[in-house]
Amino acid sequence: MSAEHLAFELSKEFLESIVQAVERKDAAFIASSLEGVDPADISLLLDEADSEQAKYVLEVLNNEISADVIEEFEEDTRKEFLNELSSEEIAQYIEEMESDDAVDAINDLPVRTREEVIAAIKDEESAAHIQELMRYDEDCAGGLMAKEMVVANVNWNIQQTIEEIRRQGENVEKLYSIYVVDDNEKLLGKVSVKKIILANAKTQIKDIYDEDIKSVETYLDEDEVADIMQKYDLVAVPVINLQGKLVGRITIDDIVDVITEQAEEDMQLMSGISNDVEEDDSIWAISKARLPWLLVGLIGGTFGAWAIGFFEGDLEKNAALAFFIPLVMATGGNVGIQSSTLVVQSLANKSAFEESFGRRVGKMLLVALLTGVVLAAISFGIVLWWKGGEEGLPSVVAISLICVVMLSSFMGTATPLILDKFGINPALASGPFITTTNDILGIIVYLAIANLLLL
Amino acid sequence: MSAEHLAFELSKEFLESIVQAVERKDAAFIASSLEGVDPADISLLLDEADSEQAKYVLEVLNNEISADVIEEFEEDTRKEFLNELSSEEIAQYIEEMESDDAVDAINDLPVRTREEVIAAIKDEESAAHIQELMRYDEDCAGGLMAKEMVVANVNWNIQQTIEEIRRQGENVEKLYSIYVVDDNEKLLGKVSVKKIILANAKTQIKDIYDEDIKSVETYLDEDEVADIMQKYDLVAVPVINLQGKLVGRITIDDIVDVITEQAEEDMQLMSGISNDVEEDDSIWAISKARLPWLLVGLIGGTFGAWAIGFFEGDLEKNAALAFFIPLVMATGGNVGIQSSTLVVQSLANKSAFEESFGRRVGKMLLVALLTGVVLAAISFGIVLWWKGGEEGLPSVVAISLICVVMLSSFMGTATPLILDKFGINPALASGPFITTTNDILGIIVYLAIANLLLL
Repeated sequence: MSAEHLAFELSKEFLESIVQAVERKDAAFIASSLEGVDPADISLLLDEADSEQAKYVLEVLNNEISADVIEEFEEDTRKEFLNELSSEEIAQYIEEMESDDAVDAINDLPVRTREEVIAAIKDEESAAHIQELMRYDEDCAGGLMAKEMVVANVNWNIQQTIEEIRRQGENVEKLYSIYVVDDNEKLLGKVSVKKIILANAKTQIKDIYDEDIKSVETYLDEDEVADIMQKYDLVAVPVINLQGKLVGRITIDDIVDVITEQAEEDMQLMSGISNDVEEDDSIWAISKARLPWLLVGLIGGTFGAWAIGFFEGDLEKNAALAFFIPLVMATGGNVGIQSSTLVVQSLANKSAFEESFGRRVGKMLLVALLTGVVLAAISFGIVLWWKGGEEGLPSVVAISLICVVMLSSFMGTATPLILDKFGINPALASGPFITTTNDILGIIVYLAIANLLLL
Repeated sequence: MSAEHLAFELSKEFLESIVQAVERKDAAFIASSLEGVDPADISLLLDEADSEQAKYVLEVLNNEISADVIEEFEEDTRKEFLNELSSEEIAQYIEEMESDDAVDAINDLPVRTREEVIAAIKDEESAAHIQELMRYDEDCAGGLMAKEMVVANVNWNIQQTIEEIRRQGENVEKLYSIYVVDDNEKLLGKVSVKKIILANAKTQIKDIYDEDIKSVETYLDEDEVADIMQKYDLVAVPVINLQGKLVGRITIDDIVDVITEQAEEDMQLMSGISNDVEEDDSIWAISKARLPWLLVGLIGGTFGAWAIGFFEGDLEKNAALAFFIPLVMATGGNVGIQSSTLVVQSLANKSAFEESFGRRVGKMLLVALLTGVVLAAISFGIVLWWKGGEEGLPSVVAISLICVVMLSSFMGTATPLILDKFGINPALASGPFITTTNDILGIIVYLAIANLLLL
């Protein structure tokens, strides 16, 4: 099957035909149209339909596929959809999900409904798993893990382990390694599926298991889990509690989502969008997410205006001075963002050998001096050619640029490092706050230098 | 093993002790210190050492571990390190690598050395695999795939398949599924390892294999491969050629790297850094990567100055007009970046049901109108309170803000959509180019409105 076949006919026409089938209650047509279509694709399709239509379609499909479709819904769609269902109906779908996805879905529900749904789950083990997982914060290893995994006691042989795989088979979709524990469920190591396949039925687990296993503790932050799985190229990582007891497993698909969300969040922080919004959210939601930082920018701009006001006299004497305010300001802004981005990225790829604060800032200032001198020389030439040298304007612009580039580099380098020290996402430093600050500083530096040199 | 144990003592002291051991040629100390340390950690350690020291350490370790360490090196470190080795030495390490990593390493070498290294590889199959993979572009599915995988003929039984796993065992580290092909090596489907474990030795592959398999073609772009693997939660995807013949396999760890690099690249594009540099690169390299966009900004600033020059008369009559240039400019810049970021993110999460260009721009203009009116009202109040209303300045600032917010929103929405249509990375639209353009437009709009209303 090629890539073309992957992206099957998810066209508006196909959606339309499904919607029409829903309206005439044509279950047979829906079932045959969606036969063999991946739940991820059905989910994309139903994201565009309304909740009642989606409800009918999912009733036509079998519960297992419907549960997969619900898992794949975007959060907004899922909330809206689950709202249409009774607690019993939700519980039916929840029972088909892996425990981590079940908890994600339940967390979308109003608090009161959650209890009802859990009470309506028939399988006691599932209910217990869900209740256990709900204790953990969403953003830590405990909140990412699922209870589904194959665990072998160290005293078993291969035959017993295969029986356990058979027993767990239905629940564990993704089988990569079998985790080995002692009688107290303490994690000891793992056996790869390859070894299981190649071993003799009588072989003892204790003779073949691999003690060299990476694991994470329940409280570990999701970003750190992502770093570890990425660094060691893991497809799954076992989760242990403080006593070393194996309590769950995190698979790479959840971590890929964490990495993607993190990148999106950083990008939004950099661009001054304060809530997690998407282009297809409502006009009001988007405006609300955008206004706070725009207001910060407006207030910053007012301070900038006030700073320029100080130098009103200079501007009245020499209006040409105003011409270069945007140039100095924009250069400062660009330099600040460049610096902070480099620092943010190197903070994201933390190595064991961090440079000290002083060395980093020192190096960035050298880069700033070099780029500042180049920019100053070029701008000196431009201003000299355009305005002539008599009023000293070329020197004012050139000297200001060097100072502003140095200052913005310092701010752009120091701010993310300081934010990071306080546990705040350093990407914030590439956003409108630092840009606004740099703007105001740039204006003051430029006009102050003009005032000193021209008067 | 807890997270604390994962981050083992990668301290400066440990590095120092290894470096000293290298100097006194104490192989025994090195071997025992690094016993059981993950290659990814050894790699981080040696990233800090110089190439000759790294060479000695890797000679002490066994070839397989050394090859893993070399794979994990940062690109710069690896290039420098391989430069220290003879072609025969490189070939020895290459032979221990999986084919995709081998090709990555070989591609770091000068063209002439590549031929020598391939000629020095003793295992003919490895050499053939590497030569095959080198034909593909780095950024497509063919360039990401490895030749190592377990393939079963559809006419085999489980016993024969297990024999094949045993034969391939050494080469295939990550065993998730067995791919099923016909006599012409055409991909037919897969069998999960779970099925292999639970099946009877005599069971025929043709009776149990799963035809429902996602695959990608060799020419597919790496971003699309990443989208597919993420959408369908795949840990590995088989790669086929135009004839449907199975030619390789891509595993999720490589895709995680693609996703991370893409996010970093977007962030660098947004912040106007033109090459892929890191904070620990040389001062010269960083400056060189930063200057191009700073120069673009400088030229933009010069145009801005020139635009202001047109209105020199107005500024001489009313210097207070200059006060609000930064405010209008900064607001335009912020709005533009916010808009483009939202569009870039929704382009990255392509759904089957894209809004049309007109609808997207239309919606964004409504958001702009709403936010613009709010900002205008607030700025009207501020300017009125500060400067009084007599010169009409409050209205000029307020009306300009509405216009600039609308204009910047339009630019920020339309530019990434147009770039995307032409196959250019739309994240470029959040960068200094669009900011600079918005700055100039903002200045012109503001001063033109002032000119119309105040004179």
